[in-house]
Amino acid sequence: MPETATFPLFPHRHLLGIQHLSPSDIVSLLDRADEAVAVSRQSEKKTAALRGRTQINLFFEASTRTQSSFELAGKRLGADVMNMSVASSSVKKGETLIDTAMTLNAMRPDILIIRHAAAGAAALLAQKVGCSVVNAGDGAHEHPTQALLDALTIRRAKGDLSKLIVAICGDVLHSRVARSNILLLNALGARVRVIAPSTLLPSGIHQMSVDVFNRMEDGLKDADVVMMLRLQRERMAGAFVPSVREYFHFFGLDQAKLRLAKPDALVMHPGPMNRGVEIASEIADGPQSVIQEQVEMGVAVRMAVMQALLDPRRNEASL
Amino acid sequence: MPETATFPLFPHRHLLGIQHLSPSDIVSLLDRADEAVAVSRQSEKKTAALRGRTQINLFFEASTRTQSSFELAGKRLGADVMNMSVASSSVKKGETLIDTAMTLNAMRPDILIIRHAAAGAAALLAQKVGCSVVNAGDGAHEHPTQALLDALTIRRAKGDLSKLIVAICGDVLHSRVARSNILLLNALGARVRVIAPSTLLPSGIHQMSVDVFNRMEDGLKDADVVMMLRLQRERMAGAFVPSVREYFHFFGLDQAKLRLAKPDALVMHPGPMNRGVEIASEIADGPQSVIQEQVEMGVAVRMAVMQALLDPRRNEASL
Amino acid sequence: MPETATFPLFPHRHLLGIQHLSPSDIVSLLDRADEAVAVSRQSEKKTAALRGRTQINLFFEASTRTQSSFELAGKRLGADVMNMSVASSSVKKGETLIDTAMTLNAMRPDILIIRHAAAGAAALLAQKVGCSVVNAGDGAHEHPTQALLDALTIRRAKGDLSKLIVAICGDVLHSRVARSNILLLNALGARVRVIAPSTLLPSGIHQMSVDVFNRMEDGLKDADVVMMLRLQRERMAGAFVPSVREYFHFFGLDQAKLRLAKPDALVMHPGPMNRGVEIASEIADGPQSVIQEQVEMGVAVRMAVMQALLDPRRNEASL
Repeated sequence: MPETATFPLFPHRHLLGIQHLSPSDIVSLLDRADEAVAVSRQSEKKTAALRGRTQINLFFEASTRTQSSFELAGKRLGADVMNMSVASSSVKKGETLIDTAMTLNAMRPDILIIRHAAAGAAALLAQKVGCSVVNAGDGAHEHPTQALLDALTIRRAKGDLSKLIVAICGDVLHSRVARSNILLLNALGARVRVIAPSTLLPSGIHQMSVDVFNRMEDGLKDADVVMMLRLQRERMAGAFVPSVREYFHFFGLDQAKLRLAKPDALVMHPGPMNRGVEIASEIADGPQSVIQEQVEMGVAVRMAVMQALLDPRRNEASL
Repeated sequence: MPETATFPLFPHRHLLGIQHLSPSDIVSLLDRADEAVAVSRQSEKKTAALRGRTQINLFFEASTRTQSSFELAGKRLGADVMNMSVASSSVKKGETLIDTAMTLNAMRPDILIIRHAAAGAAALLAQKVGCSVVNAGDGAHEHPTQALLDALTIRRAKGDLSKLIVAICGDVLHSRVARSNILLLNALGARVRVIAPSTLLPSGIHQMSVDVFNRMEDGLKDADVVMMLRLQRERMAGAFVPSVREYFHFFGLDQAKLRLAKPDALVMHPGPMNRGVEIASEIADGPQSVIQEQVEMGVAVRMAVMQALLDPRRNEASL
Repeated sequence: MPETATFPLFPHRHLLGIQHLSPSDIVSLLDRADEAVAVSRQSEKKTAALRGRTQINLFFEASTRTQSSFELAGKRLGADVMNMSVASSSVKKGETLIDTAMTLNAMRPDILIIRHAAAGAAALLAQKVGCSVVNAGDGAHEHPTQALLDALTIRRAKGDLSKLIVAICGDVLHSRVARSNILLLNALGARVRVIAPSTLLPSGIHQMSVDVFNRMEDGLKDADVVMMLRLQRERMAGAFVPSVREYFHFFGLDQAKLRLAKPDALVMHPGPMNRGVEIASEIADGPQSVIQEQVEMGVAVRMAVMQALLDPRRNEASL
């Protein structure tokens, strides 16, 4: 990896959401991540960038891929990584989020990665602790590293994001992924569409600089990127969706619908996928899918974010 | 960290309880821990003291803070740390504690950290295995690293412990923390009081060189340190305590009760806290509270203990 | 550890089962493992053989000893090790085995250790991922590292395996351990017997180059090695076994039955043991038992396997 000195000092101590980042902050993280990709492709995937630093993954919601991605990112940077899952934590004993965080903070970590069901949990934590905080998903609010890895995946395939048409499809209402992506894509000048049944759109969607569609047939036209969202199991029956079968018929990405987008449109999904619900298997595994690349870029983006936040020049500056 | 040669060789292979330690053993561990504090305050929190050593955390009871504290302590000393939680262990398959321990022992760890619901579990293990054993809590018996971290916290705030008046308040009956603290504080010459309703006092308490009080109003007078104990959820209703509300009224530490102690008295709690049960939030977060310092000292004490037990001079001596 | 150059390049990228190994493959792994034993017996149990490599333990069935053994093996070789247990994985969210594996694969691990309830799971994975795969147990199919560690334990005690009489006793029907051992022992020229009630024998057992016995009294005669199998709890009542008591009477290894084997016969068990079910405690802990040695050899064999699969010469060859 290049010397950190080749990148400008990142002007934030925490990564709580895309909403706080300027376009140049975003571009700088993507540039760093491009460099980090190479580390994971080497046989010896190891740098000393965060040697002796302590990273704690504090996940109040289980997540295979996000927690693993942060864990490997930290280990490849040489950090000591400790996982705290809800099951084994004192939350069961009635301790509050803040008490848990303050306890961990007293152990002098350098960076705390938090996922929590409540919007704003990461920001609340950041006010209380002495270390850097990364939001790995807080309720339906933000999931900034997901948006960054999506942008990195698109940029590596398509180059500049400005003017690209990106269609985000599915359960926008409950999706922190959609929210962070809308903010980031707008910041970089892409044209963002959301496609969803009206029951799965947030009330404020029309204030978010997106074009809103209720039919895939309308929204996918000329799209450069088709970004599918996961339909949570608990929404599959009930007030939001009439039935899984009907949902797939109208909003599931299949060959016929994909043909409406540009012929070289990228197909993306944050995972884990519900095959046959929001996406057909042949599309998930097809030639336009970059779903595996997204996962690879996830490790690189998290390496970049942690290096940027823990830039050793920040310590020197505060001396 | 200083060369281990600057400390005397610790004369024990295991840390099973405070009861086996001499005053000079205790002071030597606290001196080592004072040095270890600095490591965790550095940007690069890493020494090579236990490089290539294997530490196994064998926790039959879940514990966020204690297991995390041992894990970070080991990692910062350069050890390879492996966590074994009950949930994933063969205990479910009907294997005995001893078979589990013997199996782990055959994998050639250097140190085994054990927490178990049965008093004496750590000592039993120490007889069976070839490595060092640290008792991280065995039933209502002992929790020696908790007492050491409490003593370190007090010593750093107040200097010499001798003659200090330390009031231990709450569920003494079920508390290994209380037991280890009483032993350690007596060894270092402090004057120990326990304050609890008679239902929460062990029958042998009058043989333990403590002054026993049943009212906070009496026991807190002139105290230099007020050490609150956690009231386990399962005691909150039933034979031990009439109600949470009444318990807080009589035994919860609030501003009025704390005023009875010395004006600069330290407030301590081993965590996790039940705010509004044994301690008021304003006291837990107040200026006299050293509860966060206790957590920080916990990592340092565990680093000190593991370094002392795995002193490389011990190997040379046995050659 | 010796330079890897002193061992021939291992001709397989995966270890899916003993069935794919030649006798010389097996001997070469045992030779490597003999060297690895020394590493774990040192004070500093650490090599740089897999420094910067990423090992993922993907366990769909809980297993204290196997997962721990792989974890310690990887850490002692300097690899970054990440554990993925089912409980915390997206399997709960309905993701398929293959999607989970493909996601992990995209994170660029070097080696994936998998345990799964379905026979063939490891082989299926190996077709899909870009890294090496080790089968740590797939249904009732194979558990190759267990057979290798058993062979290493026998070879270190008895020398050459050819002509040794090895009696495998108990629930052969459901045992991947038995299956892998039969294949390996036959490959190295041992004479294999199986002893089990007819309800616990697979239908194809007579095609497996073993001598089949239904009575311990017949099968143990002149045996050099007595290898007991674990009786799963769920078989203890019902169609397979009349009662635990009766099972122990006829098939449990006690002093009287062991006397039928050679006086220096080894007693083995893959663990975890059901004392008083398939083996008497006095035998498990007696002088002929090598059950603890098996565990120690387990770590060594896994170090050897991972080093062989990730031989750096393999990368050079593919350049």
